[in-house]
Amino acid sequence: MINVAALEKDLRRLAAVGAEPGPGVTRLGFSPEERELHRQVAEKLAALGADVRRDAIGNLIARRPGEDDTLPAVACGSHLDSVPQGGRYDGVAGVLAAVAALRTLKERGMRTRHPLEVIVFVSEESSRFGVATLGSKVLTGRAQPEEWAGLTDFAGVSLPEALAGAGVDPAQVGAARRRPEEFKAFLELHIEQGRVLEETGNKIGIVTAIAAPTRLRVTLSGRADHSGATPMGLRRDALAAAAELVLAVERWGRAESPQQSVATVGILKAEPGAMNVVPGKAVVGIDVRGIDKESIARAVAGIRADLAEIARRRRVNAQVEELTAEDPVPLHPGIIATLEGVCRRLDVPYMLMPSGAGHDAMNMAHLTPTGMIFIPCREGISHNPAEEASLEDIARGAEVLLAALLELAKPVPRQTAPKEAPSNLPATTGNA
Amino acid sequence: MINVAALEKDLRRLAAVGAEPGPGVTRLGFSPEERELHRQVAEKLAALGADVRRDAIGNLIARRPGEDDTLPAVACGSHLDSVPQGGRYDGVAGVLAAVAALRTLKERGMRTRHPLEVIVFVSEESSRFGVATLGSKVLTGRAQPEEWAGLTDFAGVSLPEALAGAGVDPAQVGAARRRPEEFKAFLELHIEQGRVLEETGNKIGIVTAIAAPTRLRVTLSGRADHSGATPMGLRRDALAAAAELVLAVERWGRAESPQQSVATVGILKAEPGAMNVVPGKAVVGIDVRGIDKESIARAVAGIRADLAEIARRRRVNAQVEELTAEDPVPLHPGIIATLEGVCRRLDVPYMLMPSGAGHDAMNMAHLTPTGMIFIPCREGISHNPAEEASLEDIARGAEVLLAALLELAKPVPRQTAPKEAPSNLPATTGNA
Repeated sequence: MINVAALEKDLRRLAAVGAEPGPGVTRLGFSPEERELHRQVAEKLAALGADVRRDAIGNLIARRPGEDDTLPAVACGSHLDSVPQGGRYDGVAGVLAAVAALRTLKERGMRTRHPLEVIVFVSEESSRFGVATLGSKVLTGRAQPEEWAGLTDFAGVSLPEALAGAGVDPAQVGAARRRPEEFKAFLELHIEQGRVLEETGNKIGIVTAIAAPTRLRVTLSGRADHSGATPMGLRRDALAAAAELVLAVERWGRAESPQQSVATVGILKAEPGAMNVVPGKAVVGIDVRGIDKESIARAVAGIRADLAEIARRRRVNAQVEELTAEDPVPLHPGIIATLEGVCRRLDVPYMLMPSGAGHDAMNMAHLTPTGMIFIPCREGISHNPAEEASLEDIARGAEVLLAALLELAKPVPRQTAPKEAPSNLPATTGNA
Repeated sequence: MINVAALEKDLRRLAAVGAEPGPGVTRLGFSPEERELHRQVAEKLAALGADVRRDAIGNLIARRPGEDDTLPAVACGSHLDSVPQGGRYDGVAGVLAAVAALRTLKERGMRTRHPLEVIVFVSEESSRFGVATLGSKVLTGRAQPEEWAGLTDFAGVSLPEALAGAGVDPAQVGAARRRPEEFKAFLELHIEQGRVLEETGNKIGIVTAIAAPTRLRVTLSGRADHSGATPMGLRRDALAAAAELVLAVERWGRAESPQQSVATVGILKAEPGAMNVVPGKAVVGIDVRGIDKESIARAVAGIRADLAEIARRRRVNAQVEELTAEDPVPLHPGIIATLEGVCRRLDVPYMLMPSGAGHDAMNMAHLTPTGMIFIPCREGISHNPAEEASLEDIARGAEVLLAALLELAKPVPRQTAPKEAPSNLPATTGNA
């Protein structure tokens, strides 16, 4: 049903924008590269019969009118910006799957009762200004523009300056905010950025919830001593304490695995860091994520309790800072059921899974029933030039997206196309 | 018996050379500061009746003739160079204790059958050129001058250039080499550079052996993964493997504690080192030291075996490089017994202990029966401006040194001073 040749051409064309030597791309939020990608996609969507506009923050919104255009829209989309030296599929796969879905509708002359929207969110990655999912935050009323003035990128450009360069007036971004009544549902297709689909042999992941991180920075202070002159019993080794903490974090991650939580030490710095000195200080960065608030809370409390015991036993001082503690975002059970039904009907091997990373969908979930479709990416590699998703997997994902959009937006039978009274089900209790 | 006022004055005067703001000093090997210290100490020793000379590498050698000057010399000494921003006692305490001992002999008009030598070794610290105990290595024939050309300091000065600046011709340093027959014994007093004396309340440590390090660099390669998108069961976390290794090293250090071995991880680097990435690589620097070769070998073998098990179980690759594997140097049992006898006679609380750090004495031990006297230093702090040894502790150490020198060199009764036939015991079986 999906035009795979056209999809391949779209992928190839977009890959040229912000291309680095090798397969990587750099398309920072609010950069000329991002704007060029928005321009190209806007052109495609207009050619497919959508009304295209740019909202006050720079999100691209393409609307394909419904048979009853007063009905709430069924929306889908993703983003086109990338991390520095990123890959060609993160965000792009979701946008081009939406384009492919609209192309099929046009090629087959199909209409829907509900209007459809394709939304290309601006500046999803946090790598430029430290704020993730900026476009979808503004669209859903979750942004804090009063904090933007203090944010600068690595080149010293402030976020307001970058916005001005992109023709965005920070004072006007409130106009981009949408109301829940405008939507019936939102769907985002995205590469998994993990290896679960590949390792389990599934072709589609239906996301049940988007995990949120709780992050702790632990500073352990023991005593720096000459390694040769200090017997084992006289030491207060901050690194050995940190090593126990690393394993405690892993243990709690494993204990909470049935609830799909994970716990990671990604950062460990030992000081002074010399062969012949017992480390006197260690800094440990801990990231606990999951989709079950109670499970996250149990893991964090367990890690804190283990840390206190380690510090007491080893006579080191432990200082804990909580850097962030966000709530996970469950996706809509009705949308999940719709996606499951589609996969079964299309005979696509699928699984339910959490998303460990954040996405624009987590903001949209606060506005309207939202679902996410994950497709495999090679070896789970992402945010990396080696990122790769196969054309076949993207096309299969686009097929699932199209089928779900049709089910939610209700296709109008081709021959008859009668002017019936519109179905006025409220957005939040639609047949999703 | 020791002239404490004169000792205090000596300490104060030397502290001014190479003084940094605050209490620290910088007196690198072969620097003008080291030469100035050698000059001042040479002057003191000459004033105390010693024949003073400088050998081909720059060691200062002060000889106080014996009643029978054909007998092998009883020698003592230490060094005057320091690490950058070092303390005022490392090396200096041993040199000034030797000066104080000779001062007491002069003040009391005492003579000895054997000649006495005070040796101030040049360039003991490794911090400038990466070679430790250079002066004593040359004197004992353990240096490798053919490798010196490739050694440069942080300012880009090569070792041969620094030697030339100090008036030393590398081609001639062989002339500094001494023969075993020239010595009966060697004693070095040094600050402990650890906290064992302070924590046990002992005032003197009699060193049984000088530990030697075996050093391993272990590189663990797992797989960098997104921390949110990678379930615990799919991870190959190099840092978690490294944490287990840290604890295994500590366990082996503890297991070999009865043999006075220690094992330390002083360096741990995790990459890429980001909150949301499971570390794919970790580098671990391991230092195992002891005075019992078999114990060191057991610890190293145990660590290697544990590492292999950890790597296998966690599916990470472990690469091990042995950076160094030196042999510990046992000190002379006869000298140890002499020092024990002196401490008992003077009623000084003492203990037998290993030296975790290297010293000039470890080279001298290959030439002649050698002993070391440790004195406490505050909180074990060394190689640091805050390094401190009390005047009282240095004076007590000098008292022990003097008593041991007299016992080894045989005092000549003051009134009679008869010309007896010299005792011709060979150096290695002296009454030490």
